[in-house]
Amino acid sequence: MTAHSSSFHAIEWRGQSLHLLDQRVLPHTHTVHEYTTANDVADAIRDMVVRGAPAIGITAAYGYALDALNGRDLGEAYKVLAESRPTAVNLFWALERMASLGTEDPHALVAEAKKIHEEDIAANLAMGQFGASLIKEGSRIYTHCNTGALATGGHGTALGIIRSAYADGKITQVYAGETRPWLQGARLTAWELMQDNIPVKLVCDGAAAQLFRANGADWVIVGADRITANGDVANKIGTYSLAVLAKHHGMKVMVAAPTTTFDLTLDSGNAIPIEQRPMSEVTSLNGQPIAPEGCEAINPSFDVTPAELIDAIVTEKGFVENPTVENIAVMVNS
Amino acid sequence: MTAHSSSFHAIEWRGQSLHLLDQRVLPHTHTVHEYTTANDVADAIRDMVVRGAPAIGITAAYGYALDALNGRDLGEAYKVLAESRPTAVNLFWALERMASLGTEDPHALVAEAKKIHEEDIAANLAMGQFGASLIKEGSRIYTHCNTGALATGGHGTALGIIRSAYADGKITQVYAGETRPWLQGARLTAWELMQDNIPVKLVCDGAAAQLFRANGADWVIVGADRITANGDVANKIGTYSLAVLAKHHGMKVMVAAPTTTFDLTLDSGNAIPIEQRPMSEVTSLNGQPIAPEGCEAINPSFDVTPAELIDAIVTEKGFVENPTVENIAVMVNS
Repeated sequence: MTAHSSSFHAIEWRGQSLHLLDQRVLPHTHTVHEYTTANDVADAIRDMVVRGAPAIGITAAYGYALDALNGRDLGEAYKVLAESRPTAVNLFWALERMASLGTEDPHALVAEAKKIHEEDIAANLAMGQFGASLIKEGSRIYTHCNTGALATGGHGTALGIIRSAYADGKITQVYAGETRPWLQGARLTAWELMQDNIPVKLVCDGAAAQLFRANGADWVIVGADRITANGDVANKIGTYSLAVLAKHHGMKVMVAAPTTTFDLTLDSGNAIPIEQRPMSEVTSLNGQPIAPEGCEAINPSFDVTPAELIDAIVTEKGFVENPTVENIAVMVNS
Repeated sequence: MTAHSSSFHAIEWRGQSLHLLDQRVLPHTHTVHEYTTANDVADAIRDMVVRGAPAIGITAAYGYALDALNGRDLGEAYKVLAESRPTAVNLFWALERMASLGTEDPHALVAEAKKIHEEDIAANLAMGQFGASLIKEGSRIYTHCNTGALATGGHGTALGIIRSAYADGKITQVYAGETRPWLQGARLTAWELMQDNIPVKLVCDGAAAQLFRANGADWVIVGADRITANGDVANKIGTYSLAVLAKHHGMKVMVAAPTTTFDLTLDSGNAIPIEQRPMSEVTSLNGQPIAPEGCEAINPSFDVTPAELIDAIVTEKGFVENPTVENIAVMVNS
């Protein structure tokens, strides 16, 4: 396995089985489950034991290999895994890659799943170095949601850049936005950074502007769900707000994502429909109501940040500053 | 009692006792407690049964009158009430006004407390009409924290303007920001508006920018803790963020506060120290941890919005547009 700088494993292959760190119970409980069938892995993906697009793809590949190891029907394995999170692009990509080997040989399939895992970590480490090269010594970084070792094969995208730049001695403080309504910043990012002894302070999303005004910070660094040809970025709700506030305070905005995140068939972010998620995610927390019964809510799952608010987009192939249709096409197709 | 448009009473004098709606258990439970001594009223203020600067002042005045009714030592009553929330300016103002009557006559003191209560409602209603005059028909309003009948004598400041403009048929939709970390928007503002059948949708603080971009809104209307001579506004954390985002989207920002909120001895908001509250308010919710044990957090209790981001400041005496040292002084001293 490629070396990576996080001190824990969210996804780990041990001998003949897959071990997943249960992200549903973090940060309070550290529970690792063992899996030996594609069916149980599909349940784990559906139930969000594992989350984050790259992590889901890697997990599905291992799930497919598990059924080969146990002599089960690989057509069935493909189907049950593909149905576990039907909107996850990385999941289909990983399953296609496994199936396209055209073999039922368990050793070959386990090796391929490990290769997918290692390549993801290698891509994250490359992204980490490209991103870190843009960061000056003594920087304070604000990040949002979770884009770390928990969401990927083991280093992270935006959080991977923060890990790499911290290892290079360039970062003095990380601020983690709590990221309502799901609180991934509080539950996962703060946990990851504390595990690795990187100094982190948690901030309510509405307090970011005051922090920028009073304390200052140098970069907002975030991940991406989808990036269009012109450099518009769809990402977790709250990202667009941070980008506007960062520019208002003279800070810079960096987006980190593998080149597979780009959809060059879309001209701009206006072409991306904004998914609305259930109101209950806003009106309750951990199953406890926090708003009046029957209260309506608006709950967009992500937002679109226009390219003109973004200073740099970093991928495993390099980075562009001041993104344009032209420099993005060159980077993605290189 | 002056008529007001909210359908419930947070503070109510009934015959010989004070009745307070317990705001700690809203919105899930509607509990009213009865008080007959200044000491118990002081406990209620300290324990946040009642909150909001004007509401605290009115409650303290009634608490003082209660001890007069029961023939207790009014010097003691003053002392115990004054110590209940030592930073609440309205509390001292109300107690001073009661004590300065120079009488122990319970009827005179109950009448004075009722007068303080009525004057507050009358000021809110005047503010409501001034503010509503700035709002066009068909407007959508975003508000933050709770500035309503729960925080005042019975109509509200920013939420009072929303009530008045809604009664005038000018408002089609209210968006309530949930206001982390204390969630006053979710717990109190949504509840108040639902009680009065005013259409409200709850929004996570980090989703406001996406809402402004996608749906649009016409005004952000907020209250104020303190306003300096130049029109800079200290208010609940998250206000400054909303003001920057509103201006970025071509929306207008209105601040509503009684003239007692102005501190004309301070030149600008730079002179206001930002109180940092306990980290536990960010890292836990309803006593449940939502972040890793030992996680640090930044928890400023309010922020400062510069006057240049504010389109109008509304008081019980009128309003100023594009606030300046000059037009504020004229309004406050009129």
